[in-house]
Amino acid sequence: MSSSYGENIRLSIFGQSHSPAIGMTLEGIPAGEHIDFDQLQRFMERRAPGRKAYSTARKEADRPEFLSGVRDEYTCGAPLSAIIRNGDTRSKDYAAFSALPRPGHADYTADVKYFGYQDYAGGGHFSGRLTAPLCIAGGICLQILKRQGIEVISRIKSIGPVADESPLLFSTAGKDFPTVDEAAGEAMQAAIEEARMQGDSLGGVIECAVLGLPAGLGDPMFGGMENRIAAIVFGIPAVKGIEFGAGFQSAWLRGSENNDSFIIENGQIKTRSNNCGGILGGITDGMPLVFRAAIKPTPSIAREQDSVDMRELKEAKLSVGGRHDPCIVPRAVPCMEAAAAIAVYDALLGRRKELR
Amino acid sequence: MSSSYGENIRLSIFGQSHSPAIGMTLEGIPAGEHIDFDQLQRFMERRAPGRKAYSTARKEADRPEFLSGVRDEYTCGAPLSAIIRNGDTRSKDYAAFSALPRPGHADYTADVKYFGYQDYAGGGHFSGRLTAPLCIAGGICLQILKRQGIEVISRIKSIGPVADESPLLFSTAGKDFPTVDEAAGEAMQAAIEEARMQGDSLGGVIECAVLGLPAGLGDPMFGGMENRIAAIVFGIPAVKGIEFGAGFQSAWLRGSENNDSFIIENGQIKTRSNNCGGILGGITDGMPLVFRAAIKPTPSIAREQDSVDMRELKEAKLSVGGRHDPCIVPRAVPCMEAAAAIAVYDALLGRRKELR
Amino acid sequence: MSSSYGENIRLSIFGQSHSPAIGMTLEGIPAGEHIDFDQLQRFMERRAPGRKAYSTARKEADRPEFLSGVRDEYTCGAPLSAIIRNGDTRSKDYAAFSALPRPGHADYTADVKYFGYQDYAGGGHFSGRLTAPLCIAGGICLQILKRQGIEVISRIKSIGPVADESPLLFSTAGKDFPTVDEAAGEAMQAAIEEARMQGDSLGGVIECAVLGLPAGLGDPMFGGMENRIAAIVFGIPAVKGIEFGAGFQSAWLRGSENNDSFIIENGQIKTRSNNCGGILGGITDGMPLVFRAAIKPTPSIAREQDSVDMRELKEAKLSVGGRHDPCIVPRAVPCMEAAAAIAVYDALLGRRKELR
Amino acid sequence: MSSSYGENIRLSIFGQSHSPAIGMTLEGIPAGEHIDFDQLQRFMERRAPGRKAYSTARKEADRPEFLSGVRDEYTCGAPLSAIIRNGDTRSKDYAAFSALPRPGHADYTADVKYFGYQDYAGGGHFSGRLTAPLCIAGGICLQILKRQGIEVISRIKSIGPVADESPLLFSTAGKDFPTVDEAAGEAMQAAIEEARMQGDSLGGVIECAVLGLPAGLGDPMFGGMENRIAAIVFGIPAVKGIEFGAGFQSAWLRGSENNDSFIIENGQIKTRSNNCGGILGGITDGMPLVFRAAIKPTPSIAREQDSVDMRELKEAKLSVGGRHDPCIVPRAVPCMEAAAAIAVYDALLGRRKELR
Repeated sequence: MSSSYGENIRLSIFGQSHSPAIGMTLEGIPAGEHIDFDQLQRFMERRAPGRKAYSTARKEADRPEFLSGVRDEYTCGAPLSAIIRNGDTRSKDYAAFSALPRPGHADYTADVKYFGYQDYAGGGHFSGRLTAPLCIAGGICLQILKRQGIEVISRIKSIGPVADESPLLFSTAGKDFPTVDEAAGEAMQAAIEEARMQGDSLGGVIECAVLGLPAGLGDPMFGGMENRIAAIVFGIPAVKGIEFGAGFQSAWLRGSENNDSFIIENGQIKTRSNNCGGILGGITDGMPLVFRAAIKPTPSIAREQDSVDMRELKEAKLSVGGRHDPCIVPRAVPCMEAAAAIAVYDALLGRRKELR
Repeated sequence: MSSSYGENIRLSIFGQSHSPAIGMTLEGIPAGEHIDFDQLQRFMERRAPGRKAYSTARKEADRPEFLSGVRDEYTCGAPLSAIIRNGDTRSKDYAAFSALPRPGHADYTADVKYFGYQDYAGGGHFSGRLTAPLCIAGGICLQILKRQGIEVISRIKSIGPVADESPLLFSTAGKDFPTVDEAAGEAMQAAIEEARMQGDSLGGVIECAVLGLPAGLGDPMFGGMENRIAAIVFGIPAVKGIEFGAGFQSAWLRGSENNDSFIIENGQIKTRSNNCGGILGGITDGMPLVFRAAIKPTPSIAREQDSVDMRELKEAKLSVGGRHDPCIVPRAVPCMEAAAAIAVYDALLGRRKELR
Repeated sequence: MSSSYGENIRLSIFGQSHSPAIGMTLEGIPAGEHIDFDQLQRFMERRAPGRKAYSTARKEADRPEFLSGVRDEYTCGAPLSAIIRNGDTRSKDYAAFSALPRPGHADYTADVKYFGYQDYAGGGHFSGRLTAPLCIAGGICLQILKRQGIEVISRIKSIGPVADESPLLFSTAGKDFPTVDEAAGEAMQAAIEEARMQGDSLGGVIECAVLGLPAGLGDPMFGGMENRIAAIVFGIPAVKGIEFGAGFQSAWLRGSENNDSFIIENGQIKTRSNNCGGILGGITDGMPLVFRAAIKPTPSIAREQDSVDMRELKEAKLSVGGRHDPCIVPRAVPCMEAAAAIAVYDALLGRRKELR
Repeated sequence: MSSSYGENIRLSIFGQSHSPAIGMTLEGIPAGEHIDFDQLQRFMERRAPGRKAYSTARKEADRPEFLSGVRDEYTCGAPLSAIIRNGDTRSKDYAAFSALPRPGHADYTADVKYFGYQDYAGGGHFSGRLTAPLCIAGGICLQILKRQGIEVISRIKSIGPVADESPLLFSTAGKDFPTVDEAAGEAMQAAIEEARMQGDSLGGVIECAVLGLPAGLGDPMFGGMENRIAAIVFGIPAVKGIEFGAGFQSAWLRGSENNDSFIIENGQIKTRSNNCGGILGGITDGMPLVFRAAIKPTPSIAREQDSVDMRELKEAKLSVGGRHDPCIVPRAVPCMEAAAAIAVYDALLGRRKELR
């Protein structure tokens, strides 16, 4: 099913950008897990719009209301469900797109797939807003993982041509702009502002690492950690590529360069390098699980673009109004952590089945 | 489950490199589909080893025996199953790896995951040999798709630093070395031979395109074509990255450059460029679906490497014997087509549910 | 996953009896299906409590609020979600059961499964109230099926020892008490009232038939219509048995009696009898699909019962307060129709994949 | 998917009665589980035909060949696969049924579903022979469960009108005819012989109990033990009904009679009676899990029957040749144990995810 993910837990996301609410259900979280709602709210706010120059002016509290699954701040075993009301909507901004699809958006493909019945307002179910429920689920998984010594960290690796070359070793969650190298972060922000001034937009790359993972998570073939993570990360709108460890770079290396030698460190088996991104044969090897995702530039730009009138089958000019981020990458950073946490926690529960 | 894939059809792959047989079951293929077994065999042979200088000397007919699901060359509605006997095995070549994991292989992670009970001979269930059953299933899907006007083509985009810069417009299946630019192909083969002479190996990038797809396949969020294809492609051993359309390149572009303008061509809606790789919002837009996968260099190299003795927890030197491809990329090309065909056909059947 | 159902559509039910809300998500309904919300509400009311002498005095509007998936009364392709607020709750009625499990209820098993973290108020996620979201989903499926000429009808076959022996040929939905034979219905109501006066309760059998089904729905083995229907019907609390066609009776018959002869009727293949309940080899044969489900007597009775104190591990007496139906069977009738409709519609969509 | 079962393990069954082989794959069995192949073979033989007066004269060794998933008699973590070659086939016996469907069989529904492409020989994928792979998987699960103190026992409860009224307290596996009361067993065999002499057949009821189960297995709603067991048991051909505990009988009882009082026994919480069949709210309560399944009489009978010619759409007489069991119930007993074991083991693995 399109809007569900998971084998041992099951996340189901619902809602459209301008429907009464968006939300999620999350089945399979064992009973007795504590949820710190304040911490969850702070996590949600890393994704929420309206706080920065580079993000849309649409203001949303993104405060989830839990409808089920918790009792006194602990999971009670029943499916978790939570919703966020859609308050500040301006559906009329989007009325035009019912006939004129925005380049780079799902307007056209949704029209074909849903025979014209789609909810086109605000991108409907394709809206980036649907990453808010992803962050509810992911924020909960992050808390559970943390208690087991597993941490998910991430940063912006690049925005357009500006890269952060420092190694990712610690969380950037507390930063206003999540890079390791602050100078790079400032250059990225300048690049975003420049694009915005020109009515244009930028994409970038996000790097994510999962620390503290035990070896042995994941499965061979289609159940590999790469498969599992890719299967959820591509659910974040605008992601067009993913790589693990050295990734595409490893296609340039020789085997003798790319292979990660095994060593003994403090009595434990480790690898000297981590070109495999902590995954061998789909299964975690105990080193940090590292991946990077490519985010395309926000398709909604102020400039006039070439489109077509889908009803009359003729070419037409399109100017996208509404409020849009000139660069979605910073707000996508917590989404990436959420996605990684969900995939990892799902695999962790799967691993329990094998242990006696 | 680890070794299964699919929502509307279900592929299940079994076997180890040196078990009595490897095979697959494939459920959900509608009754009445013709299977051309000669054509399937020719497809299998594109993957089979022992035919080229750059591939392992192990000779396997890779001739599937169908056990069920067909009657008189037509699918009969019951699950398809087919096996390939493992004949030419030399398990003793691998006995050493029960304690000394090969860098870049799943030996170590399998040992952790399976508590020492894994079948280590030849990489067990992690062996590249398991792509043979993938090709059985994929070869069948390719035939069915072809009858519906859908074709999957692919080529080697690069081997190590050598790239094929010509556009991929037609199938390279008939070629000895599957590149578009033959000079680039020769340079790649030279690079592979050089690596082989040095006891080393090379990786590369494979590009794949699906032509003739209708718009409207795939689903939003976790059911997007990117998610579906990534979820199967990472099941091919050694894949460490995947990108769609402009992919990682799109993270360098501006929105105005990356957006694919809509145009009318012969009365149909098309896009002027195809940076989105034929996928918008997870759903096909009718343009070629294009993706590239990064393959790491073969981890089994002749050179001595650093490993550890997992039983005694001490460092040790390892020299990998056996027969190995200095570059697995050429043989992975049909596997990529197989994976793409399975994912696309699965989505195509899913689409039928929506049509009335 | 425990609270999800379906292969081609996916229903996910959430909520506890006394959580802020209960609800459902329903993925996979094709875009463009009309929902008549008034008709849905009338269907919901057949299940709603507080309307009859035999049902609990707890009053709930059971008026679903749709949060997503619809635009202008048509499905828009995105997941449907709807909730019902839990207004009239009296959690304190149930505080006692946190230690003293009610016989016949899930209090004890929930305590074991959820380590004491369960939401015990009102039966939590095990409450019969969770059939309301089932009826939302089922009510929608019923409307879609109806437009395709498929109708689900049902009736009370027996309450305790009182049986309705008339054949089920038409819907009893419009009746106050859903039996075919009205005299039997009156006798059943009298039996319920008698049990209620004695602080006791009654169970019964519901019979359900799906009319207008095409032949060819369902799959062999675990995908049979029996498997699919049983897998959802046992999700209705208190169901302890299910049988198809002659069911348990067929175990008493000889093959020559039980076999349904094929005949030609109006140029179509039919069977003379319908002992197989419209299902052969798991697949519909075009005759009415008939099943019966056994509902145990409501476990909450006014009489004092033997229980145990789970914390102190000693035996204890229990008197259940609160408001309870002396017989849940009448309210379970629409739930059975809902369950059947969901299973049948799921199979119908699956069938579309096979048709060309 | 039609021929797959399981959430935490996944069983996939393939083959037709007269295809080259039948078989199964079983994913998700943790590594390191011992398989006693002799014991498995003895279990297989309880189902195998040709050994008794009441069973078909077709002789099949039913000796599975394992193709993968084991190393030195221990599971190695990779998917288990095993096949049984179909040797003694007489396809021509069935040629007639390609046009004349046998009453009570899937011939007609298969013809509709598969557009005439079905493998009609011997019932194809619908054949009772497909319970052999079920028994391979079930036999393995039974061995694993046994090591955890869980035992599955069963017996014939009735054949036609002859019932075994003794309580089921121990295994009948060692008996020639699996009843508790041997006199009842002899009467049943006489009834079968009588039916056979008359060219007729008989059905019956099988009772199954799972002993030694911990409380807490299964899930609420659609993941209940009833749902899980029904979803696999209806995969055994000829099953037309299932009930748990008092089952249909409970619909005749009052709540005060049907409720199982809680008691303390040897410091543990038990119930005085077991009308709920060891399942409350879908979850095991630690008492024996008890269910009964109704098996219809073998549809293949020697007597002439009314059928139709599907190609010419006219009525026709049919005499079924071939070799058939006058009563399939005795051979279905181990199948029932197999099905129960698979469902229970699947739930047991699921329970591990919740435990910390």
